[in-house]
Amino acid sequence: MRAVDLIEKKKQGIEHTKEEINFLINGYMNGSIEDYQMSAWLMAVCFQGLSDSETAYLTQSFVDSGEVLDFSDIAVHVADKHSTGGVGDKVTLVLAPILASLGVYTAKLSGRGLGFTGGTIDKLESIPNFRCELSKDEFLNQIKNVHVAISSQSPNLTPADGKIYALRDVTATVDNKSLICASVVSKKIASGATSIVLDVKFGSGAFLKTKEEARELAELMIKTGKLLNKKIDVVISSMEQPLGYNIGNSLEVIESIEFLKGFYGEDLYDVTLALLTKTLINCGLAYDMSDAKKMMDEAIKNGSALNKFKEIIIAQGGNPDVINNYSLFEIGKNKIEIKALEGGYISKLSALDVAYCAKLLGAGRDKKSDSIDFGAGVILKKKVSDSINQGDVVMELYFNDVNQNKLDEAVTIARNSFKVSKIKVEKPVLIF
Amino acid sequence: MRAVDLIEKKKQGIEHTKEEINFLINGYMNGSIEDYQMSAWLMAVCFQGLSDSETAYLTQSFVDSGEVLDFSDIAVHVADKHSTGGVGDKVTLVLAPILASLGVYTAKLSGRGLGFTGGTIDKLESIPNFRCELSKDEFLNQIKNVHVAISSQSPNLTPADGKIYALRDVTATVDNKSLICASVVSKKIASGATSIVLDVKFGSGAFLKTKEEARELAELMIKTGKLLNKKIDVVISSMEQPLGYNIGNSLEVIESIEFLKGFYGEDLYDVTLALLTKTLINCGLAYDMSDAKKMMDEAIKNGSALNKFKEIIIAQGGNPDVINNYSLFEIGKNKIEIKALEGGYISKLSALDVAYCAKLLGAGRDKKSDSIDFGAGVILKKKVSDSINQGDVVMELYFNDVNQNKLDEAVTIARNSFKVSKIKVEKPVLIF
Repeated sequence: MRAVDLIEKKKQGIEHTKEEINFLINGYMNGSIEDYQMSAWLMAVCFQGLSDSETAYLTQSFVDSGEVLDFSDIAVHVADKHSTGGVGDKVTLVLAPILASLGVYTAKLSGRGLGFTGGTIDKLESIPNFRCELSKDEFLNQIKNVHVAISSQSPNLTPADGKIYALRDVTATVDNKSLICASVVSKKIASGATSIVLDVKFGSGAFLKTKEEARELAELMIKTGKLLNKKIDVVISSMEQPLGYNIGNSLEVIESIEFLKGFYGEDLYDVTLALLTKTLINCGLAYDMSDAKKMMDEAIKNGSALNKFKEIIIAQGGNPDVINNYSLFEIGKNKIEIKALEGGYISKLSALDVAYCAKLLGAGRDKKSDSIDFGAGVILKKKVSDSINQGDVVMELYFNDVNQNKLDEAVTIARNSFKVSKIKVEKPVLIF
Repeated sequence: MRAVDLIEKKKQGIEHTKEEINFLINGYMNGSIEDYQMSAWLMAVCFQGLSDSETAYLTQSFVDSGEVLDFSDIAVHVADKHSTGGVGDKVTLVLAPILASLGVYTAKLSGRGLGFTGGTIDKLESIPNFRCELSKDEFLNQIKNVHVAISSQSPNLTPADGKIYALRDVTATVDNKSLICASVVSKKIASGATSIVLDVKFGSGAFLKTKEEARELAELMIKTGKLLNKKIDVVISSMEQPLGYNIGNSLEVIESIEFLKGFYGEDLYDVTLALLTKTLINCGLAYDMSDAKKMMDEAIKNGSALNKFKEIIIAQGGNPDVINNYSLFEIGKNKIEIKALEGGYISKLSALDVAYCAKLLGAGRDKKSDSIDFGAGVILKKKVSDSINQGDVVMELYFNDVNQNKLDEAVTIARNSFKVSKIKVEKPVLIF
């Protein structure tokens, strides 16, 4: 077998065998297949696609390239969730403690953010001294003792995905659904959870732009799970406007703490409940969403979810006082208010624009080596369908040291990120 | 500008500007763009194609990456020809001395062969002591003094094409007509000739399989020349069966010497005349093919073409005695005759099969570092439309030390390379 022949094969749209996929991935990992051959193959895949079987072989090959976690001596059910990424998506921060407070062991490996805003790991690191780089033993022990841990992904899990993802990122080969599926699903399988629930987002602020694309990716993920004997559940949700009200690392953690204190917006609540429901059903703890809702409301009301969040912070070395003293967070020392020029109803609020604005303010990074300003971000005061008067604040921008050009651009984008209509606009559908 | 954005652009089928093409090629040459980005871009080009303008920009960018030869103080007209490659194609070996003997300065830079059989340089090196690696000064001086030189391509000409060709070869991105056009035309432009005639071949033994593909490539080459202010002429010829009778390095040189002595097959004569005609017209030495034919016949008849070949050999350090003593060539010491199992007419003779057979016998190489057996090859005794009796020899295989498996395969392929029909078959059309 030669790499060049397999590239030619895929270029011609011919299906690979399992052996061929393994030859490519193993060869790439042992250095006998070069970066430039892998990138040519990846580009051919972007044009010709992979079949369901090829996608499953690729996923398994990623899993086999590294370690696979095993929780079988800790618990029968271990939950994991993953989002394909969205703006203001802090669901993990509220779902993980709620689940653990309900007795569900929750093992969450997360990434840092590339692109517009931080990832879950970046958000948690805005809590002073919070440690996300847990060793495997620390991770397992914390799950045993606290029933939940949130750690950055170990390089020992799916190293082939890590190496190939880095290559895709610089060769314009990120946006193929089979490659995305293999990347996400392999990480989840290697993470060892028994209940895997994925939140596939679409819309202006998501990687996937249309509901159709989201549905295709969701179906492929479910099929891939089936072919690899792993039950995978998927929620499809809209990311046209940001999720919740706060965008930016510290700001999102604060919104999550407020949530666990019982002060939440409807959209974040609904997505969290949808993911919670599937997980609780998988673990045999609920029959339906009505069950799950009661359990979630109770965990918030009786303080056990918030307490679990505190336990996580303590276990991972962070300062738990942040829960009652938000001034311990870094928050941008400068604020600009963006006001409505006319009254009416918010008819559009672009997640993409808000995210790009937050990034310009310092909340995101372009390269892994870039630093993030935890205090930078945006607080929305209005969302789609809310009524607004002329001069009302639509959003607040928080930032520290940003050069004037970037700041001007951020303000312009923020001003153009929303539209006001004279006619009442319905709340958009969030979950499909 | 970032490479990843340009890859994405081409992936989406958007046309590049001249600046973007230059950014890619210059960046690749100076190391700021990596192999893996170039190969991803090349694969995207294979799917999305390049426009005529992009092809011209790429061609010019290849030319600009290195030296450009200049013959303006040697002659007004300097001829060059190039073939896209075929089996038994020894046109350069006869055309170059004929042209020079007719007073046309001829500057020919050639390549070694990769794939089935040797290239022009390999063939010439089968003449004992023949030197093909001329320095620039040696090349120019020989053209001044002998009026013709055939040298291997200097790495100083179109180095970007050289680097990219090596990458295409291992990433299955060879077969795109714009990439082929830029590679061929840039080399010809950098070679400095004023008359450029290209032989674009199609058929089983050529890189391009159909007449339509050949016509498209030919048109693109002519257009590219126009966009870059360089007149390029093209002959389209068939490569269904091998050209001439001998395939393999020494054997092809012998056939070429025989040609110059006046003993030639019709097909090699016709292709040579077609290319000669265009060149003589370009140089103002002939009005039409009838003129050119008279001049060619005379140059062969009066011995001046053969004498010019002798001068080339002497100038490039080879042993000119080969012209009258073929035993000075290495010829395979073993011979196998392939005979017809039934009588009739040869209805098919696959150039691809004959080439593959010759390669198995040792006449070709897979990698640049592989050695070639100059003495290995095939002599055809019959060609398409020839009548044949049962038991007649169709072809002879010549070889030295070949392992039994390869030899068995070569014989099997040879036996299956031709078909015999009871019905008389017309001679195939050769030139379009």
